[in-house]
Amino acid sequence: MKTLLLSIAILSSILVFAQDNGAITKLIIGLEKLALDKWNNGNPSGFLEISAKDVAYFDPMTDQRLDGIDKLTALYESIRGKIHAGKYDMINPKVQSVDNMAVLTYNLTTYVGDTLNKWNCTEVYRLEMDNKWKIIQTHWSMTKPNIK
Amino acid sequence: MKTLLLSIAILSSILVFAQDNGAITKLIIGLEKLALDKWNNGNPSGFLEISAKDVAYFDPMTDQRLDGIDKLTALYESIRGKIHAGKYDMINPKVQSVDNMAVLTYNLTTYVGDTLNKWNCTEVYRLEMDNKWKIIQTHWSMTKPNIK
Repeated sequence: MKTLLLSIAILSSILVFAQDNGAITKLIIGLEKLALDKWNNGNPSGFLEISAKDVAYFDPMTDQRLDGIDKLTALYESIRGKIHAGKYDMINPKVQSVDNMAVLTYNLTTYVGDTLNKWNCTEVYRLEMDNKWKIIQTHWSMTKPNIK
Repeated sequence: MKTLLLSIAILSSILVFAQDNGAITKLIIGLEKLALDKWNNGNPSGFLEISAKDVAYFDPMTDQRLDGIDKLTALYESIRGKIHAGKYDMINPKVQSVDNMAVLTYNLTTYVGDTLNKWNCTEVYRLEMDNKWKIIQTHWSMTKPNIK
């Protein structure tokens, strides 16, 4: 009987853990998609609103890692209104999480006119004191860039 | 007196927190440097030994994200002995952490002969059940790749 109760207790805790991880996965992907929708309509505010003060940032156009929300804001404001993708697909999103940090990875395809662009993306989210998840690290790179 | 005791308690917990974060930072950078030393001498075992079963992986040569240690092992074994960098510099490493997950970002320069290569790197480490930190996500990309 004791063994049965112990098994039920362990199973319950595994289920709760799995549920929690599932809930985090759903929430993180939802946050990312909302921000991507705005991004692909020329509006970087979605990503800026969910990025933390200490965000670290890489993309293929920066000379080195950018540190902090002020630098990221300056970069994003410089391209506000300039990016318009007719269609995008978040491919195979994966979330690996603990209670208060989660890493989201996915491939992204965007169509700007007839041009297909392929991206690799890593976002790290952290659960903040106000119970909101914020991005603390963004890494965008081109999938198999055609190098000179 | 109560206020004083409370202030001391808060200050102590902040100091402990800062110490813990500092210790994690030192440990994570140390793990990465050991693996990089081996990597730049043609030996991928250092990274494989500290990568988790569920590791997610991007580099500029892969068609899409690679999932899991088996695929990463196959990739790394295919280039064993082929990479030899005479010199490398880990530039401006930054670690953002909670108790059981940490994200390390840095720029890397490597010299292969006279050729300078510049990289962006994001590693996410997770504290495992056996109390060892393992990489659960690696993202390598070229800094400002020269696109055709």
